[in-house]
Amino acid sequence: MPSYKLTYFDVRGLAEPSRLLFHLAGVPFEDNRIVFGDGTWERMKNSTPFGQMPVLNVDGFEIPQSMAIARFLAKKFGFAGKTPEEQAWVDAIVDQFKDFFGQFRQLIIAQRGGKSADEIEKITSEVVNPARETYFKALNKILEKNKSGFLVGDGITFADLVIAENLLSLKNFGFFDESKEPKLAALKKKVFNQPSLKEYLASRKESQI
Amino acid sequence: MPSYKLTYFDVRGLAEPSRLLFHLAGVPFEDNRIVFGDGTWERMKNSTPFGQMPVLNVDGFEIPQSMAIARFLAKKFGFAGKTPEEQAWVDAIVDQFKDFFGQFRQLIIAQRGGKSADEIEKITSEVVNPARETYFKALNKILEKNKSGFLVGDGITFADLVIAENLLSLKNFGFFDESKEPKLAALKKKVFNQPSLKEYLASRKESQI
Repeated sequence: MPSYKLTYFDVRGLAEPSRLLFHLAGVPFEDNRIVFGDGTWERMKNSTPFGQMPVLNVDGFEIPQSMAIARFLAKKFGFAGKTPEEQAWVDAIVDQFKDFFGQFRQLIIAQRGGKSADEIEKITSEVVNPARETYFKALNKILEKNKSGFLVGDGITFADLVIAENLLSLKNFGFFDESKEPKLAALKKKVFNQPSLKEYLASRKESQI
Repeated sequence: MPSYKLTYFDVRGLAEPSRLLFHLAGVPFEDNRIVFGDGTWERMKNSTPFGQMPVLNVDGFEIPQSMAIARFLAKKFGFAGKTPEEQAWVDAIVDQFKDFFGQFRQLIIAQRGGKSADEIEKITSEVVNPARETYFKALNKILEKNKSGFLVGDGITFADLVIAENLLSLKNFGFFDESKEPKLAALKKKVFNQPSLKEYLASRKESQI
């Protein structure tokens, strides 16, 4: 079996779907967590492929970009969709998440950059809320059609992991009210109730994002 | 052979890498272009999977999201990377484009929304220019290592198409000076000089994006 090392900050964030894939598949990996603010990241940044994390190292071969890593692992472990059509839908959902997250990120950057309450309110109402509406509408439409309770086909895929993790973050930020989104809440519950994830989820380090 | 119909606005935009894949592979498809502003899109929007374009229809089966469509076609036609590792790098580059484009999009939205020159200048200097620096740096690093002149492996992949198309758009917007980025300019030229694309490129409808 190859030797896997996944390097990211010490939060769930964009690496967590890949961490969950390892646990789902029962494949051991080195969960290399970089503490934010102690200078380690600044020292290693230029040696990473894109100057960003996460990075997956597979027997010395490096892969950047969170969703490329997750797709690579999902294909290896059997969670990328069973047919080319299922795989395309898994990819489409993951890209829908990426589109949403690119807009949600504006809010995180504004909050962390100490922007005024007015500016944050403007980003929330003009950017994040409309983006969330589009995103939730697309996800609900899929879950109405797909009777398995998962997003694609009859089993769990990395799209389910990506969305469930994002819903948890949105809940932490006050942007996901489970009582108002029963289908999305059921998906999140179904993912986090996977028997192979239970032990990890019970002991993992929680973070807002 | 399946019957393919690709529906998008009457511009290059996010559908063009998929259009190029059809031409590269010599596979016929219906290039269904929706004229902006005549009400057609508004009427059909709710019947699309995500309320967005492009949408690929394959024998009645619909796939949304531009890069999911491109990956689906690239896998079918042999332009997705030759090994799992090459595929992961193709995906990583495409996601790097998506991250950049999500930020560049803020400028397009501001310009089209009639924002003030000050606001546009602020987005340019605070968002687009730093994002472009990260993006070009990542691409240059790849092209320094990969001696084929393509981004991944020894042949053209859909990552090359996505990046070449985006470079053309950036040039149209004044954000890509070919004389200052010789490696990126060479990649763009190499892609647009592919013999199987020549005829289409000579006759296609140009657009700013």
